[in-house]
Amino acid sequence: MMTKCTLRRYTGRGGLELTVVAIGRVLKRILLGEAMRSDKLHETLLPKRIALPVFASDALSSVAYAPDEILLTLGMAGGAMALTHSWQIALGVVFVMVVVVASYRQNVHAYPSGGGDYEVAGENLGPKAGLTVASALLVDYVLTVAVSVSSGVQNAASALTFVRGHEAIVAVVIVAILTAMNLRGVRESGSAFAIPTYLFMFAVIGMAIVGFVRQAAGNLPYAESAALDVAPEEGFESLGTLALAFLLLRAFSSGCAALTGVEAISNGVPAFQKPKSKNAATTLLMMGAIAVTMLFSMIMLARMTRVHFAEDPGRQLLLNGVPVGDEYVQDTVMGQVSKAVFDGFPVGVVLVSTVTGLILFLAANTAFNGFPVLASILARDGYLPRQLHTRGDRLAFSNGILILAGAACVLIIAYDAEVTRLIQLYIVGVFVSFTLSQTGMVRHWNRLLRTERDPSERARMQRSRIINYIGAIICGLVLVVVLATKFIHGAGYAIAAMAVLFWIMTRIQNHYRHVSAELAVSEEETDHNRLPSRVHAIVLISRLHKPALRALSYARATRPNRLEAITVNVDNEETAALQADWEKRGIPLPLKALDSPYREITRPIVDYVKSLRSDNPRDVVVVYVPEYVVGRWWEQILHNQSALRLKTRLRFMPGVMVSSVPWQLSSSAGQEPVLSTSAPGDVRRGE
Amino acid sequence: MMTKCTLRRYTGRGGLELTVVAIGRVLKRILLGEAMRSDKLHETLLPKRIALPVFASDALSSVAYAPDEILLTLGMAGGAMALTHSWQIALGVVFVMVVVVASYRQNVHAYPSGGGDYEVAGENLGPKAGLTVASALLVDYVLTVAVSVSSGVQNAASALTFVRGHEAIVAVVIVAILTAMNLRGVRESGSAFAIPTYLFMFAVIGMAIVGFVRQAAGNLPYAESAALDVAPEEGFESLGTLALAFLLLRAFSSGCAALTGVEAISNGVPAFQKPKSKNAATTLLMMGAIAVTMLFSMIMLARMTRVHFAEDPGRQLLLNGVPVGDEYVQDTVMGQVSKAVFDGFPVGVVLVSTVTGLILFLAANTAFNGFPVLASILARDGYLPRQLHTRGDRLAFSNGILILAGAACVLIIAYDAEVTRLIQLYIVGVFVSFTLSQTGMVRHWNRLLRTERDPSERARMQRSRIINYIGAIICGLVLVVVLATKFIHGAGYAIAAMAVLFWIMTRIQNHYRHVSAELAVSEEETDHNRLPSRVHAIVLISRLHKPALRALSYARATRPNRLEAITVNVDNEETAALQADWEKRGIPLPLKALDSPYREITRPIVDYVKSLRSDNPRDVVVVYVPEYVVGRWWEQILHNQSALRLKTRLRFMPGVMVSSVPWQLSSSAGQEPVLSTSAPGDVRRGE
Repeated sequence: MMTKCTLRRYTGRGGLELTVVAIGRVLKRILLGEAMRSDKLHETLLPKRIALPVFASDALSSVAYAPDEILLTLGMAGGAMALTHSWQIALGVVFVMVVVVASYRQNVHAYPSGGGDYEVAGENLGPKAGLTVASALLVDYVLTVAVSVSSGVQNAASALTFVRGHEAIVAVVIVAILTAMNLRGVRESGSAFAIPTYLFMFAVIGMAIVGFVRQAAGNLPYAESAALDVAPEEGFESLGTLALAFLLLRAFSSGCAALTGVEAISNGVPAFQKPKSKNAATTLLMMGAIAVTMLFSMIMLARMTRVHFAEDPGRQLLLNGVPVGDEYVQDTVMGQVSKAVFDGFPVGVVLVSTVTGLILFLAANTAFNGFPVLASILARDGYLPRQLHTRGDRLAFSNGILILAGAACVLIIAYDAEVTRLIQLYIVGVFVSFTLSQTGMVRHWNRLLRTERDPSERARMQRSRIINYIGAIICGLVLVVVLATKFIHGAGYAIAAMAVLFWIMTRIQNHYRHVSAELAVSEEETDHNRLPSRVHAIVLISRLHKPALRALSYARATRPNRLEAITVNVDNEETAALQADWEKRGIPLPLKALDSPYREITRPIVDYVKSLRSDNPRDVVVVYVPEYVVGRWWEQILHNQSALRLKTRLRFMPGVMVSSVPWQLSSSAGQEPVLSTSAPGDVRRGE
Repeated sequence: MMTKCTLRRYTGRGGLELTVVAIGRVLKRILLGEAMRSDKLHETLLPKRIALPVFASDALSSVAYAPDEILLTLGMAGGAMALTHSWQIALGVVFVMVVVVASYRQNVHAYPSGGGDYEVAGENLGPKAGLTVASALLVDYVLTVAVSVSSGVQNAASALTFVRGHEAIVAVVIVAILTAMNLRGVRESGSAFAIPTYLFMFAVIGMAIVGFVRQAAGNLPYAESAALDVAPEEGFESLGTLALAFLLLRAFSSGCAALTGVEAISNGVPAFQKPKSKNAATTLLMMGAIAVTMLFSMIMLARMTRVHFAEDPGRQLLLNGVPVGDEYVQDTVMGQVSKAVFDGFPVGVVLVSTVTGLILFLAANTAFNGFPVLASILARDGYLPRQLHTRGDRLAFSNGILILAGAACVLIIAYDAEVTRLIQLYIVGVFVSFTLSQTGMVRHWNRLLRTERDPSERARMQRSRIINYIGAIICGLVLVVVLATKFIHGAGYAIAAMAVLFWIMTRIQNHYRHVSAELAVSEEETDHNRLPSRVHAIVLISRLHKPALRALSYARATRPNRLEAITVNVDNEETAALQADWEKRGIPLPLKALDSPYREITRPIVDYVKSLRSDNPRDVVVVYVPEYVVGRWWEQILHNQSALRLKTRLRFMPGVMVSSVPWQLSSSAGQEPVLSTSAPGDVRRGE
């Protein structure tokens, strides 16, 4: 048992962490202080320096694709547009980020339980609002995986050129690897998050500093696409004011991808060290500050190095007025900027590209943690199958992980891993969730203010209410902008998916409610005192082997009022031989043979049990079924299939119990299903 | 129940038969005598006039593609070759057909039990030979579906041009329809076979007669491709004697596809009216005669109408020396001949094309019957999972049907429904089976001759032995030719698939043998007298609802030596409430709560049962699990998952029985799994 555990932990942690360890064992010491065993770490609460990377990878990673989306959307109206307006768009995104971070700092203080937007919306606006938030978040988790992995592959293609043209397959493979890691139960450790996240922060901010210094010194080279022109797309040659505004809003919508993941901290307050709320709020602020710094730096670097970026590079990018053609390969903005800034220092380029890919896969991995956690909360409230709520049984989480991975793969294949098209579906969910959550917070303060009398407390609440009010309005506006600019480009599908989820979860809850009503026992009912009058036991015998004899002796041990051994006569000769053997052994009860002209097993037994039931309706019938327990999955196919079908059929008869008497074959030794106590997402829940 | 049955039969028979009925209700009367209910027919044995179509559709349908394959293989060496040698190839195929039919007439007399080649080879050459035959036949069933459906779609494309370019998808859809029909349990009726098969025979032979008459009258028009030349493929421009011989043999191999299905009658002797063997032998002769007549007629018609046919028509077919190009659409030989013969009578063309498509789908359907029947015999002998042997439970056959359909679809997609490429894999299996079966027959006669003394009997046996001897040699030669000419073109894959099947079936048999030895009870053993000393019963309680109370009262009715109610304490509040309710109701036994710090269900119970076992190892523990029975599949996902996992885990503990106490929810009423007594392949097995 001990060896098994060790092995499991070792192989489970293989993929991601070992690579990282190889990159920076020294960095680890600096960051985490003295070495700490990851299973110890698991039991401790997170200090801010670890909490930041644990929760921020999703939000920070969007800097890898958000600038691209801003530039190419602006580029639809020609290259000049990108140069003149990109910083304005970036400022808009920064403004929204400030508002959202300020708002969520209120959430963190008001709801330290970690229920997140689902809880806030549900408690303050009613269960339907909560369910809407949940549907939106589930859809967004799927999109986080699809967008992050696709972008990661696109970034990796800058360095690993053989990936080009096979992005979708590579992305699906990476989703499969993440799925396998999570299914095997890779135990999250703070360091697995901390090292790549800090590396990414240092890489991007370092690149920005180098870039700005070189710009000041006047020796920052232009990007390789600086010599190109961007031709406007058809219909965008000269835009009226309204069309221009619409285009700017669309670019802004895409840029808002930088805000996904901000809500993560509000779900994770219980995982923080004390004072939990205060530390969480501080971490949130740090994360917001870093995210906007990185995003703004990237946009500025792209301007300074004159990156030209287009949705359809082959046709839109012109060299001396001629389209560059399909063989032109457009690197990501991150790739182009890093090549310019680290001109003559290829190690820097490779480092940026590697850590960017890494943090994007980490961001995808956070969805693998978040999805089952949210599903477990929804299961607790009866919106999803109840077994998703109980922990420890890995199976429960496995289903969530497989559904998430499957949906993400469908999206990746359908959209050919093109970030630009996937991003049209993204963000809707996040802003639905932001808006409802902030609206709920306003109600929350309203309710508290009705009873609170302490003036300083009231002042604090009123201040919070104003912040949340602004948050709700701004998020609502962004949601409207996102829907208006992207609905026909894909956001409509995201809304449709949310509606479907909402409907399914409502039906599930209805079902549970109905069943609960059907099964409720009234105060007066005393069914437990109405005992069945007698017990009639039947032992099913197919051959005279050890499992049959065991079933027989167990059945006899229960001393039923009546006991019969039953066999189904499929072949006269075999049955006669069985009966002869039976008598020779002197088994002290008769063996009854049921005729089966059609060589069936199930029907004769079902008919016989039915006749027993109608002869003595107050009796309870117990059917003892000998079963083999095998060790290997394929052996399972070779045994017990008749027993399984019989049991399925008998379940529908009232007054009948089925007792399985297992016989453990030697191959079953040591093959028991493993019980595990750790589950994905533990770190962020503080468990 | 009555209504359900009627509805089922009606919808089940919908597809194929209703179409046919619409075509020829009058014909049906003529053929079948007075109207006979199909469920009556089911119980009767087959007269020859029905047995012929039931067993011949596979063999006869190959006339739809065998001529094409002969012509295009010859066409590789240029158009002249096809004209000069096609009739020789046809004669070769006819010769083999005569030999095979003569040989199988011996089988039918010697083995009236219907075991077929598997039985003949197994009994006379040993189990390994039998298993080889079985592997070969299983592979060939898959190929029958793939080839027949692909060819049917290709033929249909002559009339329904919109199918062109989507052949693979259409073929997969048709396999899906056949699968659905067989899964739903369409009850085979003789008429469903008789009408399309006779229509096909009349259509092809009628077309031949019209063609020959018009040729004699000198007004048979040329086919549309008569004006074209066939250019030889690269490397085939001028062939040496050896290369020419090789090409002729390859064409001959493809033509031998006409022989698949001949063995069907030898499997179906029990389905014939008495005298069974004689009737079967006569039917076999009739089938052989019709098949060779049709094949030879088609080849002659193609010669007379100067059909030019090529593997790669766009490049190989020349109009005035210039390739016709990819837009040229090459109809099947059947299609081209019918257009020439029925020039000015389009109804004839459509009829030929329709019945050709129909009989090909019927041929595919026979594989859907044959595969589960063979699987059931293999299961009886322990080579396949034993549950495939028991009838009546549709599930057993369903698995076979789904495996067959899945494998056929993989082939269709992999080979893009191209008959020419699929046919390279075909026939190998059939000739492996023919050769081993005929060799086995020779041994069979040798054995009988050792003891037989009656001179007239001996003479008869010696005659049979000579026929089977020739059969074995010819079939062996054809097998060598097929392997030599097609191994690298695909036959190698078929051999590999057979080897894999052989290996799997050997392993399954080994497993059953090991288990049987492990479970065997020695003569002296009297385990059934060693009763467990006491019964310790545990009832699992999660909430106080009706299923829990029922489980409790059933458990109490069995009067165990010790009885406990157990709940798992996942949430302190809930558990306290449950215990309070429990006491209020005055249930006469205590409710014990097991602690579960990790919110698990399974582990605390497993640990508790384990402790009971080690405290009193001679006791048997019975765990009563209340379960819900639901009606709809998705409800199943919402319930009993914890119970299922617990039961899976407890199975591995010796001395523990699990008793399921079902509670039938109202949605389960009328949702019992259907028990059926008919199965695919019944007609041909005489059951």
